[in-house]
Amino acid sequence: VYGGESTLPAVTANTHWLGSVCVLCGRDHPPQHRGFVCSGCGPDGILDPYYDYAQLAAADPRALFGEATAGGMWRFAPLLPVRPTAAHGAWTLGDTPVHRADRLAAHLGLKELLLKDDTCLPSGSLKDRAAAVAIAHARSVGARQLACASTGNAAASLAVLGARAGSAVTIYVPASAPRPKLAQLVLHGARVITVDGTYDQAFDLSLAAIAENGWYSRNCAHNSLLAEGKKTAGFELAARLTAGFTRAEDTLPDVVFVSVGDGCIVSATGKAFAELETLGLIGKVPRIIGVQAAGASPLATAWAAHANPAGLVDGAAIMAAIRTAPVRTIADSICVGVPRNRVKAWRRVAASGGAFISVDDAAITAAVGLMARLAGVFAEPSAAAALAGVPVALQSGLISRGDRVAVLVTGHGLKDPEAGLQGVSLPDPIPPAADRN
Amino acid sequence: VYGGESTLPAVTANTHWLGSVCVLCGRDHPPQHRGFVCSGCGPDGILDPYYDYAQLAAADPRALFGEATAGGMWRFAPLLPVRPTAAHGAWTLGDTPVHRADRLAAHLGLKELLLKDDTCLPSGSLKDRAAAVAIAHARSVGARQLACASTGNAAASLAVLGARAGSAVTIYVPASAPRPKLAQLVLHGARVITVDGTYDQAFDLSLAAIAENGWYSRNCAHNSLLAEGKKTAGFELAARLTAGFTRAEDTLPDVVFVSVGDGCIVSATGKAFAELETLGLIGKVPRIIGVQAAGASPLATAWAAHANPAGLVDGAAIMAAIRTAPVRTIADSICVGVPRNRVKAWRRVAASGGAFISVDDAAITAAVGLMARLAGVFAEPSAAAALAGVPVALQSGLISRGDRVAVLVTGHGLKDPEAGLQGVSLPDPIPPAADRN
Repeated sequence: VYGGESTLPAVTANTHWLGSVCVLCGRDHPPQHRGFVCSGCGPDGILDPYYDYAQLAAADPRALFGEATAGGMWRFAPLLPVRPTAAHGAWTLGDTPVHRADRLAAHLGLKELLLKDDTCLPSGSLKDRAAAVAIAHARSVGARQLACASTGNAAASLAVLGARAGSAVTIYVPASAPRPKLAQLVLHGARVITVDGTYDQAFDLSLAAIAENGWYSRNCAHNSLLAEGKKTAGFELAARLTAGFTRAEDTLPDVVFVSVGDGCIVSATGKAFAELETLGLIGKVPRIIGVQAAGASPLATAWAAHANPAGLVDGAAIMAAIRTAPVRTIADSICVGVPRNRVKAWRRVAASGGAFISVDDAAITAAVGLMARLAGVFAEPSAAAALAGVPVALQSGLISRGDRVAVLVTGHGLKDPEAGLQGVSLPDPIPPAADRN
Repeated sequence: VYGGESTLPAVTANTHWLGSVCVLCGRDHPPQHRGFVCSGCGPDGILDPYYDYAQLAAADPRALFGEATAGGMWRFAPLLPVRPTAAHGAWTLGDTPVHRADRLAAHLGLKELLLKDDTCLPSGSLKDRAAAVAIAHARSVGARQLACASTGNAAASLAVLGARAGSAVTIYVPASAPRPKLAQLVLHGARVITVDGTYDQAFDLSLAAIAENGWYSRNCAHNSLLAEGKKTAGFELAARLTAGFTRAEDTLPDVVFVSVGDGCIVSATGKAFAELETLGLIGKVPRIIGVQAAGASPLATAWAAHANPAGLVDGAAIMAAIRTAPVRTIADSICVGVPRNRVKAWRRVAASGGAFISVDDAAITAAVGLMARLAGVFAEPSAAAALAGVPVALQSGLISRGDRVAVLVTGHGLKDPEAGLQGVSLPDPIPPAADRN
């Protein structure tokens, strides 16, 4: 199926990317480091890339972010590890809409509610932003075989963009993933290995196979470069609301709600705003509220149990504070017992002045319906969880009605329509010649 | 559910829109005409809007199409009936990608293959372009209640954009529509009336209800303004390939393949290129190949049976040439026995030097897989039908291997994933601790 010369344009390194530090031991690794994780700490030693912020801050932001040879999210290439030299369907994506959801805001009693709508990305989820970086970085290091474990969305993003790139893709996925998600993978030509177990078990199997075969790892919590791609949703939101960082920051959200499974998106969102603040492009970092499903809430549970969660910054201590437990929720994409990126996620949420909270499945299903009916956006349950967190946060005083609230909508409802239809009954058909009264 | 003040921005008339002529009798109707069809011919008297081409041709195309107060497809507002005064989620959409599908082209033996990918529009299909015009025109005439009949996609587009606009939406849909499509409608708050019959029967029921209740008709083949919105896919394709009409027309496709149900998209595509040629912006109109499913192929059947189909231009004669028959195909969006827009469709295809052809369901299913695997685009069966037409046209000599071929990808595969999975078997799960050899 695969093969032939790659027609992918060349990808160059970003010279502003200086290295990556381990979240546990702080060891610095140069960009040339070929292990995906810390050479000392192993799989828990997730790396955190950093850039030459001093030099970037000296540049005119419009010059910095205005040019996008590769289009879409790549205008933020100065804050990404690599830079494609030309546009290509395998990595050119982004610039998703931001909806001002006035009717939904009124319903929830909020002054303002913004939806960053990533449902329209190629595979229907935000994870395309990470897969785009995976394809680009794999191209730059000459890798043609990619693999990941996934509850579905990361796999779909790799399958779709891998098919566009002509790369060989192997995916480990729990057999319980919704059929439409499995359908995407198979149809896009990926080699699919369904695991009769949990996402966490599929993840461990994928890591072993990646090490054994020398594949490129598209596991976001393992290969830290990928989460860098996820920052671009936050970058776009900030750039859109400030008209390219030319307007005052009072147009920025006060709070951003993000659904949390592995913790990659929530930490990437926090990092995006923190980097923009470091560069002097925005004057504040919104509070990041990480929302977990009640049936898979190790971070929210630990956060609630800790006397001073925001004061907990040591990596090993954060890991020790978070217990794993059996998981079960309708929100399959965030049905994660061991959030691999828990240290980064905890720190970013803490640094932003935010919190982790949880919502039950009934609230998630209700949020799917609310968003569809009042904002015209069809989110999968895992994405609607973030919206379901808004009333919880209002009630607990985490946010106030006057806050400007943004919600990341991370995946399309068509990926799991039956879940969205829980409790919705379809009308009985009428006969074709029925009287219409 | 609905109600409250509309927050939709104002919509103005396009003063370049001069009127609409009946496809049967040629009678001219002014823009102010409030019936949706010809005042003399009734429902079969579909109207065809026309513009002040002489004045538009005198303008600089970059000035003409460069400005887009409302964003997205509205930069082509000079060739649309109305013009929103500001961007809004209920109508701002478009600028979808064009993929150069090299591996798929090589597989089919083509020099070049372009996919115009409308799967990423808000409701997952090209029909959002029509619904956007419906919402905008309804706003301009003060209508808050909209209705349509649909096999699913037109309904979804109205449900999604109607929810964004805060409009009341009623939809007549065959009960046989795929559940994910019905799910979209119900979740977005539309009033759904499922009809235990065909699309054609649902269509007739909707027309009666629209007349009875004074609703705004979002039936594309009934309200000709909506098909104007569908032209924007063709406009975007031409604008993209010619870098905004600044490059020579040898970058344009020689042939465009379009799936055909009611005939609205195929005729709109032909009209789009014809209008650009009239304005002197492009030097040729691509041949338009309309592709029907073999199980629902009244146009292709009539085209093949006629001695000189391209010579047939009289409306009544075209209607007489096309027989209806029971329909059945996996491609639900084009499962149409009576193509309401058959006169326009026939004429536009004939004028372009194109043809109507048909493909069987097995070829459609195969095309879904090919496009997903070799181009990374997941199309629903009705959209993949257009691609399935390519080998048929090659074999019959309608096109040659050296032609530059474009295919409109009109709907997302996630709308009906089971259909795409026909003949695909999912792998058996492995145990979580399985040996990986």
